[in-house]
Amino acid sequence: MGADPPYVHPSADADPDTLGPGTKVWNEAQVMPDARVGARCTLGKSSFVGDGAVLGDDVKVGNHADVYGAKVGDGAFIGPHCCLLQDPAPRSLNLDGSRREAGDYAARPVQIAAGASIGAASVVLPGVSVGANALVAAGSVVHRDVPAHAVVAGNPARAVGWVCRCGERLDDAHVCGACGRHHRETPSGLAEQTASA
Amino acid sequence: MGADPPYVHPSADADPDTLGPGTKVWNEAQVMPDARVGARCTLGKSSFVGDGAVLGDDVKVGNHADVYGAKVGDGAFIGPHCCLLQDPAPRSLNLDGSRREAGDYAARPVQIAAGASIGAASVVLPGVSVGANALVAAGSVVHRDVPAHAVVAGNPARAVGWVCRCGERLDDAHVCGACGRHHRETPSGLAEQTASA
Amino acid sequence: MGADPPYVHPSADADPDTLGPGTKVWNEAQVMPDARVGARCTLGKSSFVGDGAVLGDDVKVGNHADVYGAKVGDGAFIGPHCCLLQDPAPRSLNLDGSRREAGDYAARPVQIAAGASIGAASVVLPGVSVGANALVAAGSVVHRDVPAHAVVAGNPARAVGWVCRCGERLDDAHVCGACGRHHRETPSGLAEQTASA
Repeated sequence: MGADPPYVHPSADADPDTLGPGTKVWNEAQVMPDARVGARCTLGKSSFVGDGAVLGDDVKVGNHADVYGAKVGDGAFIGPHCCLLQDPAPRSLNLDGSRREAGDYAARPVQIAAGASIGAASVVLPGVSVGANALVAAGSVVHRDVPAHAVVAGNPARAVGWVCRCGERLDDAHVCGACGRHHRETPSGLAEQTASA
Repeated sequence: MGADPPYVHPSADADPDTLGPGTKVWNEAQVMPDARVGARCTLGKSSFVGDGAVLGDDVKVGNHADVYGAKVGDGAFIGPHCCLLQDPAPRSLNLDGSRREAGDYAARPVQIAAGASIGAASVVLPGVSVGANALVAAGSVVHRDVPAHAVVAGNPARAVGWVCRCGERLDDAHVCGACGRHHRETPSGLAEQTASA
Repeated sequence: MGADPPYVHPSADADPDTLGPGTKVWNEAQVMPDARVGARCTLGKSSFVGDGAVLGDDVKVGNHADVYGAKVGDGAFIGPHCCLLQDPAPRSLNLDGSRREAGDYAARPVQIAAGASIGAASVVLPGVSVGANALVAAGSVVHRDVPAHAVVAGNPARAVGWVCRCGERLDDAHVCGACGRHHRETPSGLAEQTASA
């Protein structure tokens, strides 16, 4: 890791070899051996990153969040108490009475695209994709894919608007009043518009 | 415990005498002294099982779940971040200004029947009963009793269908398309139908 | 602290100098250095009290609750798994690609008045005020200010009634059938009526 090794709090449970440079793993946070965490991430108090999860760079995982097997893009924000799920039909036992383990069902990991924010205490259901720079409002339960730059809220979560990379809402023309960015419609939501001369 | 003693992670807080054989208590999980946990259970990271709680065999308690005084049947699944509550009118203080403690109110424990699954981050209100093999969808807030084999979802949780022991939804005739089990109506929900010759 | 020093569990992370007399900090709970906690508080398992938070006396913080920068009045109850938020537009990165830290946005702390109860697993959005003796039902997501003695529930939380200091609902005349207290309307909700001769 050279000049900037990851930091693992003494109470945490993570193998530094699974962590990128500059990443910080705080009190009681846990990273399972088959997870991978990028550079400059922050894993909050008591957060959990399960086997199969792959986190990009600059991802922030809030306190107590549970990330099961998800793919999380660069710069995404996973709020405190969020659950990213992968088991579509949770049971404790298989039909033969044996313990139901990870290999006993077809996991459907969540995908969180780069720059998206999952507000505190939100649940993202198995197999759901959240688009780039989207914002899931705190306390949401997300059953359906979320387009890029969309804001969703509620249980079940529904579209309530559009958001800029800077975190502010867009106006009806998809312009950000705070930072001035323009956006255009795409098949998968909105995309930032590059300035034309 | 003989051949298969319970396992308690070094960071956990549980007296092995309260745990059945084969039960595993993971990182920072806590079992209070007056709780009882059956055989082959799994208590996830930072989960809490409070005084008065009684868990059957093969129960899985997810990460960060809080189980206060509930009765939980064999093979039930309590998802990550679930709260099973027992205090119907939570306050910090009694009217005389003294600290409100467990003995100062009439606790109304939750009952979770055998084989039921409580999806991640769901809240079950004090006194609520969840029937056998029922499924509470992730992120639900459950105010009313849930019939056996019912699926409930939302805040407040409402009935949305029926589910098989195997975890799949039942069709309109209460037959499971995945494993073929038939079910009949009972006063408390559905029950599996035993094959007739 | 004299005769009644605070108690900090060996697995917790809190400087006793930030804690009032008689306060108890349980397993894995964490109090940040710039938080202040009053007398006779209880901080539950794995709860987190962030920088800038100020808790009064006799406050109970439930297991796994996250309190970010909030002002919490005497005798308030913050249920297990609650999140009191302060960041209105959470992102991991600033627009220049640097890490977004506490100083990079205008925090809007939550205010919880004396005697209020925030039910388990509720989320209180940044900048929201909850009035004295109010009750937020378990599993609520609170976007708007809550009047004193009001009961709110749901996602988003809506008014559903009025509650007494003792925890019981008030009747249509704002009288408590359990303890007999009368209440009068005020611009900010209800207030207890002092007996007239």
